[in-house]
Amino acid sequence: MKKMLLIYIVIISIFMIYVFRYYSQQSEVNAWDSRGLQGDIAENYVMVTFQSGLEYWKSCLKGFEDGAEKLGVSVEYRGATQYDVQEQMTVLEQIIAKKPAGIALSAIDPAALTPMIDKAVAAGIPVVLFDADAPGSRAYSFLGTNNYNAGVTAAEKMAQLTSREGQVAIITLPGMQNHDERTKGFEDTVHERYPAMKVVKVADGKGDARVSRHEVEKLLKAYPDLAGIFVTEATGGTGVGEAAKAVPRSNPLKIISFDTNKGTLDMIGDGTISATMAQGTWNMGYWSLQYLFHLHHGLTVPAPTSAGEVSPLPVRVDTGISVVTRENVADYYAK
Amino acid sequence: MKKMLLIYIVIISIFMIYVFRYYSQQSEVNAWDSRGLQGDIAENYVMVTFQSGLEYWKSCLKGFEDGAEKLGVSVEYRGATQYDVQEQMTVLEQIIAKKPAGIALSAIDPAALTPMIDKAVAAGIPVVLFDADAPGSRAYSFLGTNNYNAGVTAAEKMAQLTSREGQVAIITLPGMQNHDERTKGFEDTVHERYPAMKVVKVADGKGDARVSRHEVEKLLKAYPDLAGIFVTEATGGTGVGEAAKAVPRSNPLKIISFDTNKGTLDMIGDGTISATMAQGTWNMGYWSLQYLFHLHHGLTVPAPTSAGEVSPLPVRVDTGISVVTRENVADYYAK
Repeated sequence: MKKMLLIYIVIISIFMIYVFRYYSQQSEVNAWDSRGLQGDIAENYVMVTFQSGLEYWKSCLKGFEDGAEKLGVSVEYRGATQYDVQEQMTVLEQIIAKKPAGIALSAIDPAALTPMIDKAVAAGIPVVLFDADAPGSRAYSFLGTNNYNAGVTAAEKMAQLTSREGQVAIITLPGMQNHDERTKGFEDTVHERYPAMKVVKVADGKGDARVSRHEVEKLLKAYPDLAGIFVTEATGGTGVGEAAKAVPRSNPLKIISFDTNKGTLDMIGDGTISATMAQGTWNMGYWSLQYLFHLHHGLTVPAPTSAGEVSPLPVRVDTGISVVTRENVADYYAK
Repeated sequence: MKKMLLIYIVIISIFMIYVFRYYSQQSEVNAWDSRGLQGDIAENYVMVTFQSGLEYWKSCLKGFEDGAEKLGVSVEYRGATQYDVQEQMTVLEQIIAKKPAGIALSAIDPAALTPMIDKAVAAGIPVVLFDADAPGSRAYSFLGTNNYNAGVTAAEKMAQLTSREGQVAIITLPGMQNHDERTKGFEDTVHERYPAMKVVKVADGKGDARVSRHEVEKLLKAYPDLAGIFVTEATGGTGVGEAAKAVPRSNPLKIISFDTNKGTLDMIGDGTISATMAQGTWNMGYWSLQYLFHLHHGLTVPAPTSAGEVSPLPVRVDTGISVVTRENVADYYAK
């Protein structure tokens, strides 16, 4: 009887060990097979901006975080709190000293930041730029909006809203390169593709709601049949919206604005603004993280070289424009 | 004694069950945590080219395959065997009928293929374009070389090789857009940045080794001090190399070619050609696969809409240029 029990113990133990080993082996195989594209939670990727509290960056950071979550790595958000070159340089220096797995930077000033970017790359820290480029630097990639194409998209939307005819105007910030490009893309498209439309005026809204509102009032006096206005930045956009609200017309003015701050989205919701051009901010953050991850893990072809004459990654990425209207405005409120 | 043994059995069994459950639970947690970015081997992504046997596509396909391996999905390579629009359309139609997870297409003819691309997208099959675009189509993205920038890079390399002085010439295919862009990028850069250099001639090599060789012979008679030649395509490039070999000089002609076929690489190895411009073909394939994967799995922000006014992915990607010289030529032979 005693012997029998001992045998039982041995048999049960062996069976248990067998079951245990079987499952533990299977789990190893699964872990290998199912690894996919994945990093380590100890890898730290840093996003660096300026005026770091701006609503605009939220969606960039969301993309960066979403990328990190998918790949199982960590992120950190840093930046100059003000529009201040020195402050951004100090922040960047602190980050480089900690040797992170990668840095995604929106460069406040290309000339001032290039030496620091090059120093980071020379130290083996991958750097990509998003939204604001530093073209002469050794950063591996730039991801941002092609502003000319954004103007083209705005013109196409305006043509659709105005049934391809009538006078339209632009309110912009003349002399600022990104705004000049948006203006030119809009003007060229109207001129080349829509013969029954005409850009009658390009006015300076100074990036200010009151100035932009006043410009619209002048425009509506000079061109009472004005069919639409494209305003190349958001603060002026809400001013244009207020002007249109104050002067109701039987055939409402079609307003196309830029970016997706809350004021703009609210005016799309109530029909004051017909559409706004949303930049691919989530894409900027998400693909920046992906690129840095690929550099950190040596997954690029070709591999980076110290001579720097190779392109391990796409060098310039147009993150695109999405048209926001009443139909999809709910998707654009910050979550 | 009997009781004691029973108690032992129970204790051991409980302990074993505990150990087993602990590990099996942990393995579940791991499986979830360690999933990373990963698909299913049943997902089939298709790359479609024309003249599908060309050496040029090998590296594109390698990038596509490497992406699939990382993400745990399957790929298929298809294409028109000839430079034949009808054949590519037939192949594409067969592929669409099988509803793959995504299609990466190099479009032989934008106008002819756009309706078919749009049909695939309307049927919910993600399509991206690489190397050759179809700009009016509903494909989500184009990944390819910015040929103007390729010409800029070639000019920078030429300036370095010639110590920034002397006469240089270009052998190209005038009238073909990508070659005209390479030529313009080279000319503009020399003109704007290198006052002691001059582009003395832009000759037509007709994409042919013999014609290109003959053009070089004429050039060397007209400009005996010619310091360098940039040839915008590979077949002519080897012709230029042969011409230079036949006329040895104390100060050898600096030749910069384009692409990385075997003949070009061999001439870089023996010093006949100084450098060649390698397109980011691996990047075209790798990031095409990534983009299709993200569309298939609904990982993009914003999500695609039927109206098509949004950009779920970067819309235009410059996959970059790498300079191949004797130092890194070994990396470019097809593996």
